[in-house]
Amino acid sequence: MEKPGLPSGTRDFGPETMKQRKYILSVMQQVFESHGFGALETPALENLKTLQGKYGDEGDQLLFKVLNSGDFLSKVEDSLLHERNSKAVVSSIADRGLRYDLTVPLARFVVMNRDKINFPFKRYQMQPVWRADRPQKGRYREFWQCDIDVVGANSIVSEAELIEMYQEVFEALHLGVAIRINHRGILDAFVPMAGSLEAWQQFMVVIDKADKIGSAGVVKELEERGLLATVEAWNFLESTQALGSNMEKIEALEMFAKGVENLEYRARLEQGIKDIQRILALVSNSNNVWLDVSLARGLSYYTGTVMEVVVADEQVASDFKIGSIGGGGRYDNLTGMFGLKDVSGVGVSFGLDRIFDVMHVANLLPSAHKDQLESYLICAMDENSLNYAYSLCNVLRKQGKQIELYPGTPKLKKQLDYANQRNFGFAIIVGESEVQQNSYVVKNLVTGDQETHKYPNS
Amino acid sequence: MEKPGLPSGTRDFGPETMKQRKYILSVMQQVFESHGFGALETPALENLKTLQGKYGDEGDQLLFKVLNSGDFLSKVEDSLLHERNSKAVVSSIADRGLRYDLTVPLARFVVMNRDKINFPFKRYQMQPVWRADRPQKGRYREFWQCDIDVVGANSIVSEAELIEMYQEVFEALHLGVAIRINHRGILDAFVPMAGSLEAWQQFMVVIDKADKIGSAGVVKELEERGLLATVEAWNFLESTQALGSNMEKIEALEMFAKGVENLEYRARLEQGIKDIQRILALVSNSNNVWLDVSLARGLSYYTGTVMEVVVADEQVASDFKIGSIGGGGRYDNLTGMFGLKDVSGVGVSFGLDRIFDVMHVANLLPSAHKDQLESYLICAMDENSLNYAYSLCNVLRKQGKQIELYPGTPKLKKQLDYANQRNFGFAIIVGESEVQQNSYVVKNLVTGDQETHKYPNS
Repeated sequence: MEKPGLPSGTRDFGPETMKQRKYILSVMQQVFESHGFGALETPALENLKTLQGKYGDEGDQLLFKVLNSGDFLSKVEDSLLHERNSKAVVSSIADRGLRYDLTVPLARFVVMNRDKINFPFKRYQMQPVWRADRPQKGRYREFWQCDIDVVGANSIVSEAELIEMYQEVFEALHLGVAIRINHRGILDAFVPMAGSLEAWQQFMVVIDKADKIGSAGVVKELEERGLLATVEAWNFLESTQALGSNMEKIEALEMFAKGVENLEYRARLEQGIKDIQRILALVSNSNNVWLDVSLARGLSYYTGTVMEVVVADEQVASDFKIGSIGGGGRYDNLTGMFGLKDVSGVGVSFGLDRIFDVMHVANLLPSAHKDQLESYLICAMDENSLNYAYSLCNVLRKQGKQIELYPGTPKLKKQLDYANQRNFGFAIIVGESEVQQNSYVVKNLVTGDQETHKYPNS
Repeated sequence: MEKPGLPSGTRDFGPETMKQRKYILSVMQQVFESHGFGALETPALENLKTLQGKYGDEGDQLLFKVLNSGDFLSKVEDSLLHERNSKAVVSSIADRGLRYDLTVPLARFVVMNRDKINFPFKRYQMQPVWRADRPQKGRYREFWQCDIDVVGANSIVSEAELIEMYQEVFEALHLGVAIRINHRGILDAFVPMAGSLEAWQQFMVVIDKADKIGSAGVVKELEERGLLATVEAWNFLESTQALGSNMEKIEALEMFAKGVENLEYRARLEQGIKDIQRILALVSNSNNVWLDVSLARGLSYYTGTVMEVVVADEQVASDFKIGSIGGGGRYDNLTGMFGLKDVSGVGVSFGLDRIFDVMHVANLLPSAHKDQLESYLICAMDENSLNYAYSLCNVLRKQGKQIELYPGTPKLKKQLDYANQRNFGFAIIVGESEVQQNSYVVKNLVTGDQETHKYPNS
């Protein structure tokens, strides 16, 4: 018989890992709820119509599609089958797909429930998503996102609150992070310089890769793509970024704004600068909030602030080569994809799996065995003692002890090995003589000390 | 633009429902962990090889299959395409499927990790499963199961512990239930009477429907299927069941055992009676544990005790026509499907969605708004006050208040409407004069009383 396995890019999480994952999730949930965000869960299965066309061509290809039930081939056109046109056949044989992120389902939920929701709608959502990506280190096909969004309000105080929530979560997790922020209004200012919207969009794609390819790589690729006008823009962004402090960068942007001749773009740039200034002033502690004028964030639906969380500890960051562990931004038209206009919102995401991986490398995850040292395993020596041990276990558990009964009566050594492997602090041993004397023996598995106790009066 | 919708048989859970679902899940988790069960999570995506052939033909048809990525048609044989043989094509175009239950993934996990697991392995798992079933009341295509299993031990104390865990969970949820138990050894005793294993298996299928079709329906169907010999078996089971008390039923079974001539089946029957007696003796309170000699539980992998939880409150049960809200049993060869022999285990499942539905009908779900009456919404009258309100909100939250800031400065009426709709107990109002006087006004939204406070010293 073939050995069973897991689909590539998926994982099982056993009890020890689950304790640690639940710890991270509970820290997040506590912060989210203390800020008044309510939980939302949407189904894993969405109609493909809901998902397709929302993530670009590449995203569409990464959607997991679910085969229709029954005789799915019966409705496919002959010609498509004969041509073996996989792409065209899909729409005849698969109506549903797996959730690709938590943002599109949020937009769908808001549109479907707009009459029932009290806006501003503050929701958090912590669920797995699926992408048919090539699996690699830190990238999975089934992974969790934890999103918080404020939908139906456009006040900048929400950006500040989300940044503080990032800070609160990572402070509680003892993980040092920095939050890079930027504003689409700042980047939009380079549209006139790029010459066209298309050239500017390519420019965004290239600078989005700066972390990976370096500054020289950006210049090289801009030149290769014939985007010579944007090289100057990149040089400006880089020299501004090199200034270091947020205040100096803002001054440089203000100076630059004076030279932008297109009034519309100048106004957007000025709005961007103002928003960033206000966010930095609102946030209680902006020491780890860095204006990064070159931060683009690929997604096209962002229209205002964009942000990204990176690991601040250089040792950890270099041990674990990974980009951001979270990010987000403001979108002025999220629900527009489903026909509901003018719903502004802002949201950020926490990448649970990357956060877990980073905390693992940085040795920040709590030991799964920590509490086990206060726990008891009852070992019975024979079937008659097992009956006695069963009720003793119930009585002691009701008294508040963390206690388990070994289910069976193998040799004591086997039961004690099990107790040690699972890090129990104590074993309670019950045999014929304890049953007769209405007592039990407690053995401290660390020191080896033994003590006899009376069966408690209930 | 078409309105977005949800796939049939799936649901969104908004914040109020989520609070109630999380309440049920947290009660279960607390009971599971107090008994030493550890969490397991497996991926939604499993290899179809892992899933197929485990749930019978009908189950195989209810599996959701996930289309392979890329040019999936390229590998399909010409003849299959020309014949439009959907069933045969599936295996060429779909390698993965969605989890159908939590038992097969557990078996797979145990086999893959047998060298790392400390047996007996006590795990709980609370995750959604997917079935391409016809959606109807109380039946969904995506729904949650909550399973607890003890794998790698065959002591009857585990059955007793699982029954007590059922009792603890439903007691904590204030839902009155009864636990019906039976033993395969008891039902096996009718194999000689049925004449063949096949006839006996059909007999099991028919009596499994007794709740739905009634006793007369069972007799009618047995006769129609030509299983005349089993009608007598059914009459015996029914008259035994009518005796009422567990003790009387056990006496009737013991009497019956004496007449079973086949020694192997007699021994299994006697073992079954002994196991049931021991379970009833072990369980602290067996008042709501009922021996039900006609309880079959369809699944073929059960080999010992079987059990099922039903709602005991007759009013609730009749308001909400539904079968069991949980069930399980002992299996002596669960991992045999993956080539690992002689791993005994026992497990039970909680049907989260049905439990939720029953508790909803019985009005047992906690109000999602209960805690909201202690919470505050800060309303700012203008952008300048909003900055002040933002830091006031942070200070009061740090002092332990459940507090939110309205993100924006629409008219006060709009903000207070929002506070009322979301059941806030208090509004804090901040305008120009409060900023000047370094104060804030607290309005009790229930009584209408107002009080002015000083901005707290931090």
